[in-house]
Amino acid sequence: MKDITRTLARYACAARFDDLPSAVRGEGVRALVNYVGCAAGGAHEDDVDLMVRFLGEFDGGAQATLVGRSERLDILNAAFINSMSSAALAFNDTHFITVAHPTSPVAAALLALAERRPMTGRDLLHALVLGVELQCRAGMILTVPPAVSAVGLSMQGMVGSIGAAVAAAKVLQLDETGMTTAIGLAANQSAGLREAQSTMASHYTPGHAARCGLAAALLAARGFECSGSMLEGAKGFAVSFAQQPNLAAAIDGLGERFEISTLAYKPYPAGVVIHPIIDACLEIVREQPLDAGQIERVELRLNPLAAKLTNVVDPKDRGQALVSFQHWTVSTLLYGAAGIAQVANTIVRERTVAELRRKVSFVNDESVSREAAHVRVVLKDGSVRVASVSHCRGSVERPLTDADITTKTEDQLRMVFAPERARAIVAQSWRIETLTDLGPFCRALAQENEHRSAGA
Amino acid sequence: MKDITRTLARYACAARFDDLPSAVRGEGVRALVNYVGCAAGGAHEDDVDLMVRFLGEFDGGAQATLVGRSERLDILNAAFINSMSSAALAFNDTHFITVAHPTSPVAAALLALAERRPMTGRDLLHALVLGVELQCRAGMILTVPPAVSAVGLSMQGMVGSIGAAVAAAKVLQLDETGMTTAIGLAANQSAGLREAQSTMASHYTPGHAARCGLAAALLAARGFECSGSMLEGAKGFAVSFAQQPNLAAAIDGLGERFEISTLAYKPYPAGVVIHPIIDACLEIVREQPLDAGQIERVELRLNPLAAKLTNVVDPKDRGQALVSFQHWTVSTLLYGAAGIAQVANTIVRERTVAELRRKVSFVNDESVSREAAHVRVVLKDGSVRVASVSHCRGSVERPLTDADITTKTEDQLRMVFAPERARAIVAQSWRIETLTDLGPFCRALAQENEHRSAGA
Repeated sequence: MKDITRTLARYACAARFDDLPSAVRGEGVRALVNYVGCAAGGAHEDDVDLMVRFLGEFDGGAQATLVGRSERLDILNAAFINSMSSAALAFNDTHFITVAHPTSPVAAALLALAERRPMTGRDLLHALVLGVELQCRAGMILTVPPAVSAVGLSMQGMVGSIGAAVAAAKVLQLDETGMTTAIGLAANQSAGLREAQSTMASHYTPGHAARCGLAAALLAARGFECSGSMLEGAKGFAVSFAQQPNLAAAIDGLGERFEISTLAYKPYPAGVVIHPIIDACLEIVREQPLDAGQIERVELRLNPLAAKLTNVVDPKDRGQALVSFQHWTVSTLLYGAAGIAQVANTIVRERTVAELRRKVSFVNDESVSREAAHVRVVLKDGSVRVASVSHCRGSVERPLTDADITTKTEDQLRMVFAPERARAIVAQSWRIETLTDLGPFCRALAQENEHRSAGA
Repeated sequence: MKDITRTLARYACAARFDDLPSAVRGEGVRALVNYVGCAAGGAHEDDVDLMVRFLGEFDGGAQATLVGRSERLDILNAAFINSMSSAALAFNDTHFITVAHPTSPVAAALLALAERRPMTGRDLLHALVLGVELQCRAGMILTVPPAVSAVGLSMQGMVGSIGAAVAAAKVLQLDETGMTTAIGLAANQSAGLREAQSTMASHYTPGHAARCGLAAALLAARGFECSGSMLEGAKGFAVSFAQQPNLAAAIDGLGERFEISTLAYKPYPAGVVIHPIIDACLEIVREQPLDAGQIERVELRLNPLAAKLTNVVDPKDRGQALVSFQHWTVSTLLYGAAGIAQVANTIVRERTVAELRRKVSFVNDESVSREAAHVRVVLKDGSVRVASVSHCRGSVERPLTDADITTKTEDQLRMVFAPERARAIVAQSWRIETLTDLGPFCRALAQENEHRSAGA
């Protein structure tokens, strides 16, 4: 299949905002709102603090806002931090077909650029939709059957840089060759391994993708050159990262179907494959709570991907617990909720919780979809409670409502901003399409030093 | 196979310079001398100019020298440029088993660090040897049979960051955990596709590797965390980038055999797999020159890798011609030499040369080694000239002498420095082991503005 990179580039260059279906624009706004909350919510994680200090040593000057923080960094470094922080609580959006988290690197690159050159809300929205679209389509080359890619390749690392590059190249108004080069330079920096999961390094990956992608677009704008066939070439992205890559998946229905319409927003800060388990556990304890002493064992029937990605029986800290299906099973059953509070280190390290995690068994079942799970809790008194979920909350079939996203986003913004300010930021984010200059919007996402103690 | 990453890290931390065989130290010096010339020779290529200007926009200050240039950049950006420039003429060293070019990112990271903290010549040499060693061994996981990796994965991109990280972590005196983290963070940034070959982007790859690797070590020093099993883990480097990865190859004979002893230094600025063809062509015209009008056709019998990597019948410019076996075959036969002059754009675009390139045919022959080639020139008068090379110049069996390396290095240094200065730099590079502070050595590699016109 020829000219895939150029076909995608030509589409992105020619696309006009007014041609987007209004539902697609609406999804762009939802993605942005959700992103803003996630970036603020993760802004003061230890690893983000560390990266801000580190990048500050190698920084070209206070060019752009860091969401939820008081420092400013150059636009490449700001893109890094604003993508990293939005992934730090694993609360960002998901494209299920690829298991990528596409909005983080795209929105982070765009917000950084918006403080360097004039950009309207419509510019940002359109570039965001396109960056998500081409990123997801690049990922589908590697993941839509018959394609098979190694489970170790982090999909957000593989394609996040491509998304950031496309979005930045669109607002920079690059021509077809420039856009092709931006995609190519981004693919040349695709990187990230799932072995890093649940360590600081797993949050480095989306930050790095945003920085590399934004650099790719800026370099293309300055005349840096790359092969025009980086995705489909004989030594390119597709054959390097997949067996039987599916090049057709990258262009089927381009401009007609929009991948942003299939994004899922997480109701829980857990690995997405764990969400149906959480929903089932919530159902089991909704009417009648359980305490640790009552539970004999828990049996799960799951899509095989769940255990492949999140089988962590003995997490040491919150980072590991976020992607432990055993931890979420137990904490949800015991606390009747699945928020940031239920993965606090104190709960992760509690002896009762640790012991119960070892009593969670699972069976892989290919007939169970990735959005489904069956949970069976056997109690010490011999009774059994069961729940099955076919489509988890936040999945395409059961999307979060706009009100759900507002609630989730405000909750996270309140981790760094006073409540009225959090409300104002959410309201402005929903109105992004009406803003004629994003500069003030971006600067309003900064945290003034003196407000920290009030919010934290 | 368990604990590969940690085993490598433990070795690198415990290693002492005085325990290195003197031949290994000597190879370290040869690698450094060769590197210095390559970095100067490529310092004013168009793509390097462009990257210096670009990185200058996002730079933390004049911390380190750029070899052969007058600008100074922060150490991450300097590491990028000094690795990129040393690869820009494809004249850097080669580790044949992996087809990586290990010294570039390692030496570039070390020279940058040497201006930030005190470093002796012995410190640099030892770290260089270790960075080359562990980088090559990581690459061997992917390339030593039964391992098979996709031909599109750039090996210098896959492992260069690991080499730079190990070397920097050694001079930073990180402990075993820090070294393990540095290797892991570097592997998490392994990136680069051979589809970019012969474009500017292919020189971006080694620059990026140096920057990412140095950042990995600095981050590990500051407490950033990563999985301890990034190379061997179930979702790690080995299984992500190879079928049947050879983990044993990473640790077999560790501390006894040294991969730096197997490095090849290029006598010609061509893709290494082309070198035996060049040697054979030189032999054919040594006694009796040929001119274009005499040649009917040229038939090559080659190891299959040669055509797999360098089959470029119609290169558009020097960048593409550097990795075109057809171009080197023709230009060597016509000009009786194979230097930078024989890939000048004027020669690449000459009609006679272009026509003759189309008359070069090849046969793949698995029985021909990668260091061998058979060349048969059929002349219009019906006569035939043949030459066979079993080990090309610059291969392990036929290494360049120290004098060859001096000549090659001085030639390149003279592209930017006055002759007496070039000679002085080469002489000091050979004496690197005796230097107690590398700061002045590094600063002496800078080009004063006013000298450019004299040298260029």
